[in-house]
Amino acid sequence: MKFNNVEIDETYAEAFGIQVSRVLITAVTEYYAKIAAVEATGFGTSVIGCPAEAGIDCFVPADKTPDGRPGYAIMICHPSKDKLKEQLIERIGECILTAPTTAVFNWLPYEKMEDKTQEKRLDVKLHFFGDKFETQTEVGGRKVWAIPIMEGDFICEEEYGYKKGVAGGNFFVMGETQGSALLGAQAAVDAIAHVEGCITPFPGGIVASGSKVGSRYKFMKASTNEKMAPTLKDKVESQLPANVKAAYEVVIDGVDEATIAKAMTAGIKAACKVPGVVKISAGNYGGKLGPFKFELVKLLQ
Amino acid sequence: MKFNNVEIDETYAEAFGIQVSRVLITAVTEYYAKIAAVEATGFGTSVIGCPAEAGIDCFVPADKTPDGRPGYAIMICHPSKDKLKEQLIERIGECILTAPTTAVFNWLPYEKMEDKTQEKRLDVKLHFFGDKFETQTEVGGRKVWAIPIMEGDFICEEEYGYKKGVAGGNFFVMGETQGSALLGAQAAVDAIAHVEGCITPFPGGIVASGSKVGSRYKFMKASTNEKMAPTLKDKVESQLPANVKAAYEVVIDGVDEATIAKAMTAGIKAACKVPGVVKISAGNYGGKLGPFKFELVKLLQ
Amino acid sequence: MKFNNVEIDETYAEAFGIQVSRVLITAVTEYYAKIAAVEATGFGTSVIGCPAEAGIDCFVPADKTPDGRPGYAIMICHPSKDKLKEQLIERIGECILTAPTTAVFNWLPYEKMEDKTQEKRLDVKLHFFGDKFETQTEVGGRKVWAIPIMEGDFICEEEYGYKKGVAGGNFFVMGETQGSALLGAQAAVDAIAHVEGCITPFPGGIVASGSKVGSRYKFMKASTNEKMAPTLKDKVESQLPANVKAAYEVVIDGVDEATIAKAMTAGIKAACKVPGVVKISAGNYGGKLGPFKFELVKLLQ
Amino acid sequence: MKFNNVEIDETYAEAFGIQVSRVLITAVTEYYAKIAAVEATGFGTSVIGCPAEAGIDCFVPADKTPDGRPGYAIMICHPSKDKLKEQLIERIGECILTAPTTAVFNWLPYEKMEDKTQEKRLDVKLHFFGDKFETQTEVGGRKVWAIPIMEGDFICEEEYGYKKGVAGGNFFVMGETQGSALLGAQAAVDAIAHVEGCITPFPGGIVASGSKVGSRYKFMKASTNEKMAPTLKDKVESQLPANVKAAYEVVIDGVDEATIAKAMTAGIKAACKVPGVVKISAGNYGGKLGPFKFELVKLLQ
Repeated sequence: MKFNNVEIDETYAEAFGIQVSRVLITAVTEYYAKIAAVEATGFGTSVIGCPAEAGIDCFVPADKTPDGRPGYAIMICHPSKDKLKEQLIERIGECILTAPTTAVFNWLPYEKMEDKTQEKRLDVKLHFFGDKFETQTEVGGRKVWAIPIMEGDFICEEEYGYKKGVAGGNFFVMGETQGSALLGAQAAVDAIAHVEGCITPFPGGIVASGSKVGSRYKFMKASTNEKMAPTLKDKVESQLPANVKAAYEVVIDGVDEATIAKAMTAGIKAACKVPGVVKISAGNYGGKLGPFKFELVKLLQ
Repeated sequence: MKFNNVEIDETYAEAFGIQVSRVLITAVTEYYAKIAAVEATGFGTSVIGCPAEAGIDCFVPADKTPDGRPGYAIMICHPSKDKLKEQLIERIGECILTAPTTAVFNWLPYEKMEDKTQEKRLDVKLHFFGDKFETQTEVGGRKVWAIPIMEGDFICEEEYGYKKGVAGGNFFVMGETQGSALLGAQAAVDAIAHVEGCITPFPGGIVASGSKVGSRYKFMKASTNEKMAPTLKDKVESQLPANVKAAYEVVIDGVDEATIAKAMTAGIKAACKVPGVVKISAGNYGGKLGPFKFELVKLLQ
Repeated sequence: MKFNNVEIDETYAEAFGIQVSRVLITAVTEYYAKIAAVEATGFGTSVIGCPAEAGIDCFVPADKTPDGRPGYAIMICHPSKDKLKEQLIERIGECILTAPTTAVFNWLPYEKMEDKTQEKRLDVKLHFFGDKFETQTEVGGRKVWAIPIMEGDFICEEEYGYKKGVAGGNFFVMGETQGSALLGAQAAVDAIAHVEGCITPFPGGIVASGSKVGSRYKFMKASTNEKMAPTLKDKVESQLPANVKAAYEVVIDGVDEATIAKAMTAGIKAACKVPGVVKISAGNYGGKLGPFKFELVKLLQ
Repeated sequence: MKFNNVEIDETYAEAFGIQVSRVLITAVTEYYAKIAAVEATGFGTSVIGCPAEAGIDCFVPADKTPDGRPGYAIMICHPSKDKLKEQLIERIGECILTAPTTAVFNWLPYEKMEDKTQEKRLDVKLHFFGDKFETQTEVGGRKVWAIPIMEGDFICEEEYGYKKGVAGGNFFVMGETQGSALLGAQAAVDAIAHVEGCITPFPGGIVASGSKVGSRYKFMKASTNEKMAPTLKDKVESQLPANVKAAYEVVIDGVDEATIAKAMTAGIKAACKVPGVVKISAGNYGGKLGPFKFELVKLLQ
């Protein structure tokens, strides 16, 4: 299939279940809300080596937030519910409570979410930091804690929602040059940023070093995917077309299957607008590992 | 003592030893170098709850880097050498190797560093990711690995230097309003960013929620420092002057004692330029815990 | 009147008619769209000394733009239709045509605009730059010109809509300290940025130096408003309350009266959330000069 | 000649004389200094259609500025001394005086400038805005005016230095794809940003639409350079190599010839590091118009 003159591989992305939490950080200005959001979601590209997969989902305007201040919704994800709870405690406690002028609220389910039946919550109990000086109050109709700190009172909720979401939605952007592939991936990430309910957890949303399961070094669980490496084209059975000099992967975690599909579609369409992008493909494990399949051709029909 | 009409508390900051590594990330443009640096140093405010203390130290211009591309020096710190090694492996492997167009080099000792005797190194051995397709080569006079990945070859070193540095340099900025204290702290962080060899690991460099050791909740090791909380002024024996409505703390980790002193001096002077900043103080534990003392008055003489 | 414990002055902002154009800049990524938008709207705070009043209105997502790429809507305003045409020619020709990967479209009227009857257009005729190599084509249902340039083809329209809008919507944010007033003004500007159809043309949206008509220097048409200057409190009949140490003005240009009212309301509410903001007022000339009056109390009811 | 495997055209850039002013903007934080610098230098790409050529030169750390606050040095340039004076008055008066927390100082000659003999000054006399409430005082050893405004006192000098500098230093970055050429140009601009005493006045420093003198439309003084347009390769006698799909120009204005040479060298070297950049060339008019010639091959030897 061709889309906007770019070849769309007849393959699918294979994705997995993951536990997803969604947290709203508000602050006095957008700048300070973002500062906290960036710190709280850092070191969060892949649970292979990071303690969580995390990223900024979207901006939430002041008239939609509990305290009438601007904010960012972030997502923190982990396959294990217990590890997710631990990460919520540490990332909120160390990176949001400490950040200037912030407040923090549970943001799952959220206004535009279709399925609001999710009722599972993790008790994060940050208020113990208040050393019995904390008090309960109400903000925007929510029961919250006010913890006296150096800048005033820090407002937070006691429990945070989580749900089974989807991790590992993905596609590859292949370009005639590294520059084309990179701009294509960047355009894709820009587009996905406007799809609510998902994150692209890798640095700037982009993966430069795709991996395969296993290695010729027995102690390595994962290693470079040599079939996608342009500098190995002559040495291995390459999966890169002759006119491709570089490829990037965009990986997406989201609250549900429909959101991943929407994000992949928006991202692929955007990448296909970029001159020099010549092919889009996706990664899978033959369907043996993950329950979710996203066929590229179907997404673009 | 008064400095620029701001009261300087006759006290000192108490700081501790920590293992410090310093890593250079280069990329095709400054933008992409920063993307990787931000991801690699996130979730890194305090080892109380984060897996490391981390931050961006400084920009390194293209004519000073091994590969002639622009870069950022980051610092990753941990009290334990083994944990530091683990953090280097994960943060470089998950947040730099994966980031578009980056290369990574050891950056300790560094050009302007006075004491270059440090010779200790941690073997990070990222090259195994190359699955035996990696090759050794030379960049800027350094022996490096070239790992074939999707965008081309990723360049990295095998070992990364570390040294005993100083963590917990600090001072408090107190303001007539929250806005004044915040702008004062921000001005301080801006100034410290230009002191090479140190980081301000908290979100945007600023701590809103200072803590004390222990709590009335027995299971809490640390809790809010109620004596610094403006909303508790009438309820506890407050350490805040009558005209202070908010305070922020700036915390600094650095490669050595002299760098912390330089950073504190630059930061305090900058904060004292901001209208509405009325007092500077610092945090200590009576000198019982940390070997480093930074007396505020001496710094400003 | 008190709003969120902040005093709202019982006065009104007086505003004037101005010719407003609205132009959409798209690009390969959001970053490059913004680069062009910032350059094209610079040196555009007030027609007292700038050749136009200009600013970024809002981001336009890829699925709403004619070419399916992300973009920014900017506004360029001038009291004179002829000067506005001149400014469109120069700002589009020098700052958008020259910018990497951009395309430019008329963006007035716009999708969410209530009154779409506006039919007036200015012929900018940028296509003559193509030196007879330009060709007509269609993008997103619009008849456009394709001008061959160094990076490929530049897409632009021939005519750009304009309408009679409103300039000089305004309010003052007064704070207990400069920091509070500044954060209050910043919070206001953040909020107004999400109101479609308006701009805050001053630097970062904020005016530090309000003026009055006339001067004791006969050759000056405007000069400092000494009644609002905190350092003159003891020397003139000050309009600043005793507890106010600084004030900032937010000035708004918009497509119509309703948009200005919406923007002022959002901005004032946001400012009133900021600790240390104690009073909101507005500027007028006794109703003698401008036909539009925005009573603060009414806006907040 | 080949540099880093990129073809360097055996040609030269031809540049012209221009009057250059250099102004320092300081503010409470780097953020607010930059806000003012961006506004004051906008709509300033080329005097063909803009009222001046303007841009940010470099950051100036707090310990180098007259008021001990961080700042940005900007450059404002015009062939005519009188127009330059007019532009200084309007850009400082409308975009810096109005910006929050700023002060403004003459910054020519500057500390690192080799030839400090320049003594010509333009009297900008902004202090009349003070309406006889302004006072003379001293900041950092400079005689300055303090003008009472809404946020406090605005500090400015009365006169600003200017000198004969050089405009139109330039080179072309040609790429195998648009993405490569763009990243190459971006890398060049990043590098030039660290050369003190020069600006790249076009949007983000990059020109997408190079021009030639004259046109087949008699009323146009300049028009597209069709020989550099990739989409006209088959229709005209193209100057683009067969493997080039896009080119960008970087244009540089500087305080003197040596600075332009230094900037061009740094920029070209940086562009040559980017994969897919295949040729560097430069623009000239056969040496008939401008007195300054910069031979590419010499710059790289």
